[in-house]
Amino acid sequence: MSGQQRSTRCVNPAIRPLKTPGPRNREIRPMSHYIGLDLGGTNIKSCIINRDGDVLAERSVPTDADKGPDAVVDRLIESAHVVAEAANLKLTDITGVGVGAPGPLDAKKQIVVNAPNLPGFINVPLVARIREATGRPTVLENDANAAAYGEYAFGVGRDPNIRHLVLLALGTGVGGGVVVDGRIISGAFGLGAELGHLLMHPGGRLCACGQHGCLEAYASASSAERFAVEAVEAGKKTSLQKVHAAGRITAKDVFDAAKAGDQVADEVVDQLCANLGSACVSFCRIFDPQMIVLAGGLILAGDTLVKRVEHHYQKLTWTIAENRVRIVLATLGERAGRIGAAAEAMQAFGDNAL
Amino acid sequence: MSGQQRSTRCVNPAIRPLKTPGPRNREIRPMSHYIGLDLGGTNIKSCIINRDGDVLAERSVPTDADKGPDAVVDRLIESAHVVAEAANLKLTDITGVGVGAPGPLDAKKQIVVNAPNLPGFINVPLVARIREATGRPTVLENDANAAAYGEYAFGVGRDPNIRHLVLLALGTGVGGGVVVDGRIISGAFGLGAELGHLLMHPGGRLCACGQHGCLEAYASASSAERFAVEAVEAGKKTSLQKVHAAGRITAKDVFDAAKAGDQVADEVVDQLCANLGSACVSFCRIFDPQMIVLAGGLILAGDTLVKRVEHHYQKLTWTIAENRVRIVLATLGERAGRIGAAAEAMQAFGDNAL
Repeated sequence: MSGQQRSTRCVNPAIRPLKTPGPRNREIRPMSHYIGLDLGGTNIKSCIINRDGDVLAERSVPTDADKGPDAVVDRLIESAHVVAEAANLKLTDITGVGVGAPGPLDAKKQIVVNAPNLPGFINVPLVARIREATGRPTVLENDANAAAYGEYAFGVGRDPNIRHLVLLALGTGVGGGVVVDGRIISGAFGLGAELGHLLMHPGGRLCACGQHGCLEAYASASSAERFAVEAVEAGKKTSLQKVHAAGRITAKDVFDAAKAGDQVADEVVDQLCANLGSACVSFCRIFDPQMIVLAGGLILAGDTLVKRVEHHYQKLTWTIAENRVRIVLATLGERAGRIGAAAEAMQAFGDNAL
Repeated sequence: MSGQQRSTRCVNPAIRPLKTPGPRNREIRPMSHYIGLDLGGTNIKSCIINRDGDVLAERSVPTDADKGPDAVVDRLIESAHVVAEAANLKLTDITGVGVGAPGPLDAKKQIVVNAPNLPGFINVPLVARIREATGRPTVLENDANAAAYGEYAFGVGRDPNIRHLVLLALGTGVGGGVVVDGRIISGAFGLGAELGHLLMHPGGRLCACGQHGCLEAYASASSAERFAVEAVEAGKKTSLQKVHAAGRITAKDVFDAAKAGDQVADEVVDQLCANLGSACVSFCRIFDPQMIVLAGGLILAGDTLVKRVEHHYQKLTWTIAENRVRIVLATLGERAGRIGAAAEAMQAFGDNAL
């Protein structure tokens, strides 16, 4: 019954199964289960969820990307078996498998075109391989999109009234995912919602992607580190001088120093938040979402980050229309990708897809 | 039979009726018709189309906005009657009515919240009024979204393979509309796809909307005029000096002077195209569309505009993934809004919605 209560309380309608189990329904169906796999450059994370989004088991194993694409795909398949076993289920009990993978993907062919952090991972027919090996229907999604869908379905956006959500994953880079009326934006060629590569300052700083002036070049953890190093090297008076002399300045160092009252670090943090505030304005004009979710390693800075981004957003945004968007922190943490991948399998193959 | 041929050749699948008329279908249905109304600050434009997108009749009458919202709504209703009569149809022959109106709209309540160019047009229940007066199901859409849908369904995007399209309407302002997998992006609160208010240069020039640095402040006809006047007033040597002395410089003057070899005018045009090129990069990262359609008064400049925008786009965009988007000119001209509104009625109430 707890499942039923939960479903009444907060399961997202995009996910909510049409038929709730229980005697009040004409048709009593067995509980369905979904596997989510999150393929990262360092780890393969897996989970198994039921249709209420409860995580029944989860695992993480090293990707061992250097062993080549075949070995990586084998690890993914092994992860599916292991996590099912951990939940005392057979693969035949699984309704579907969702895989989140680094892009670019080819949505039509359901292959990974080129995963930059996985050597040799070029034109890999991930869906076909996993479907064959597991015998279960499988769906592929960009990893940041999967995280957005995870937060939408079973994280901070788990509310039947939330149907439009933008997620920014702030880490070494800036990833993005967008849910419009309950659907992920994948783009015509599987390259949609690359929000980190919005041109914030056209012609500006070189981004890792080769474009100049991307959001990622101004609002990622690595950009914060770079701005801090530049301040130190310009001889500005800051406690980060010592950190720099002793080794490498991390984004955490910058946020910690800002919190401790360091003026230079504070400026770096403020610039980053101002750029995020600007980007949020653009995303509101473009998507008009109900919620902007900040995710990724940088959100360990917590409420400070949200408050500052919100502050800049409010300074910059429209006053001609009521401002109803909420800027919030993600709640699933590094589990968002796998849970989202499983939720996408539920969306694709679950009861509600029937 | 010509209708059937057309439908085979190029009708968009989002619009293509599921049942083509003719003896090969089990069920022979009468031809369906849709009214499109485009409510502008100056004119109310109306049309009636059949399900192949053929325009059977169209009209344009002054909006007479100064007579107040009730009179304007009456003119809209009158336009529906007049255009139906012009096509020798009764309103009972009409499957549905689509209305394109300036935003912001309230999508849920189906009302116009506040139309800036229509005095007193605040919280007007446009759909309810038109539905009551015509007896036909009615749907409301933002005017730029309607234009995008028009180009998608029956204009330059009329191709079954095109499912993802971004439209930029370049006039006094910069409007936008986005089709993702055959659906218009309306936003959670009816304020989506305001592409002209993407922050291109955060903190930059004041836009008419109150934000600083919007695309509209750099890539509209009025921004071209403003940049030209600034060049003249800065004493730059240009043929536009004379035009300025004689009266007001228009965007057409600027483009004409550039074409005639005026260096200063050419720089203004180039800046505008560079900003549009940057914006196209951002829209590709965000939506990954198959087609970016340039529409509005500025496209009278023709191929020059597309070529220059394309040039800047190519300089600025990703090289890490294949570049498959096409930047093209709209083909429906000022008819896109009414045809798109009618197409949205077809989408909402037509055979394919059954």
